Amino acid sequence: MAASRPARRVGVLGLGSMGSGMAASLVRAGFAVTGFDPVAACAARLAGAGGVVAASPAEAAAGAAIVVSVVVNAAQTEAVLFGPEGCAAVLGAGSVFVSCATMAPEAVRPLAARLEARGVHFLDAPVSGGAARAAEGRLTILASGSPAAFAAARPALGAMAATLHELGDAPGIGSGFKMVNQLLAGVHIAAACEAVAFGAALGLDLARLYQVITGSAGNSWMFENRVPHILQADYAPRSAVDIFTKDLGIVLDMARASTLPVPMASSALQLFLMTAAAGMGRDDDASVARLYARIARLKLPEGSGAE
Amino acid sequence: MAASRPARRVGVLGLGSMGSGMAASLVRAGFAVTGFDPVAACAARLAGAGGVVAASPAEAAAGAAIVVSVVVNAAQTEAVLFGPEGCAAVLGAGSVFVSCATMAPEAVRPLAARLEARGVHFLDAPVSGGAARAAEGRLTILASGSPAAFAAARPALGAMAATLHELGDAPGIGSGFKMVNQLLAGVHIAAACEAVAFGAALGLDLARLYQVITGSAGNSWMFENRVPHILQADYAPRSAVDIFTKDLGIVLDMARASTLPVPMASSALQLFLMTAAAGMGRDDDASVARLYARIARLKLPEGSGAE
Repeated sequence: MAASRPARRVGVLGLGSMGSGMAASLVRAGFAVTGFDPVAACAARLAGAGGVVAASPAEAAAGAAIVVSVVVNAAQTEAVLFGPEGCAAVLGAGSVFVSCATMAPEAVRPLAARLEARGVHFLDAPVSGGAARAAEGRLTILASGSPAAFAAARPALGAMAATLHELGDAPGIGSGFKMVNQLLAGVHIAAACEAVAFGAALGLDLARLYQVITGSAGNSWMFENRVPHILQADYAPRSAVDIFTKDLGIVLDMARASTLPVPMASSALQLFLMTAAAGMGRDDDASVARLYARIARLKLPEGSGAE
Repeated sequence: MAASRPARRVGVLGLGSMGSGMAASLVRAGFAVTGFDPVAACAARLAGAGGVVAASPAEAAAGAAIVVSVVVNAAQTEAVLFGPEGCAAVLGAGSVFVSCATMAPEAVRPLAARLEARGVHFLDAPVSGGAARAAEGRLTILASGSPAAFAAARPALGAMAATLHELGDAPGIGSGFKMVNQLLAGVHIAAACEAVAFGAALGLDLARLYQVITGSAGNSWMFENRVPHILQADYAPRSAVDIFTKDLGIVLDMARASTLPVPMASSALQLFLMTAAAGMGRDDDASVARLYARIARLKLPEGSGAE
């Protein structure tokens, strides 16, 4: 079917583990994908998946009705839009910028306003689900924006997501939901690592502990997903410690701006910072368990992990 | 079948929401249940369920091959065993004491040793699942003890539990697993309440937030179970704040004894203590959300709740 008519053009900015998976899903769905990433190795993934590599955000976005931005944060989003060779200048009226970076709602709104002033739609569309589901086109998207932004983006969203939450008619709302999710995700990873350390200090069989907890009221999505990394001593990053120093940092900034104490998120952030300070910032976020083990001289499973 | 042979006798000590449900499950399974609780209203539940109310732990245990203790903590366990009219004196050799209270392994071991010195088996058998599943005979039991203790207790365990974890051959191991579960459960309740407060501060639709998070990586068993109490403004205690000031207090004591820092559990304990100090100790543990709401003057759903 894709061959029977001209493929629609989509630009993808940022081709890390999430962006390259999303780009591949778009190619599979019949889109003509042009992507940009400043890291050559990342850009090469897109060529392997059947896309075209561009030399700048502006080149990737030229002629595309939909541009999907999968960069890391607000500063990078501003850069790919309004920095040197940014894409804002080439986006046509009626096209849509789909912003997937995790950032505070307060950072989203002015970027959206600047684009909308040019007649370009902005969809606030942070994602959840990780690299594996990005590659399968089965992400969860937490989206908000004008009806026109949704209408313009919808074909691409369907190719990338299994679940699309339509959360409101203004940019910033989707990012608010995402930050609440990140608060919980970060706290739950830190708690899972603390619980495993506590179990190790008690001399419990940790594989049995995993089995018992995943069937009990103490379970969390993160406990179930991350503790196997500890049991296998595999700290190769699926999601890195540095992601949570960033995301919980945003949560703490937002909460402080609202004069809201968030002691759970605060404790979790300190643990991620300690883990990063101990040299494990680029390792898997389950490395918080190795921090506890080092501090308290506990024995965790050993393997050929990243340490 | 229960009528075709003499019903086996089981004593149940402690007839609160958990104990009365477990006693009712034992009655349904054909056991002759005699129970004791110092609170008359609790004891009355057993009569309604078809059991016999005794005037003391010793009277409840007389002639029983299995005694199930569903009291709150180590001090109450010691009292029903060795206090005035305690049951230790009447337990026959070869009978089994099934201890379901949540307590530190270090508290379990000496109680078990004192009973075993008398020829009475001790099964360390803390439970998980809550009052509703206790009433259905569908608890999870985290058990450890000698093979003889398991063999003696097994008929009653099957009547009370859907899942029996056999975790080791010595008392204390089951309680260790339970305390790890309680660490996670307490942290996850506090995190769920903090996340809802954060969402309220951002002006998000809280019912929608529940829907989004329960389908995302930020989910936990406790978020899914407790947040509906907040959404319905129903703080009638299914499990009270005071349970977690107790259980996280045990976790903190145990961790300190092991020289293990547990900052996540520590922050959660402080939140439960603040909530109890603010007058909500006997309300549902989701009341931590009301603490945040009071401190930060946030609007949560209102109802005819306990406040």
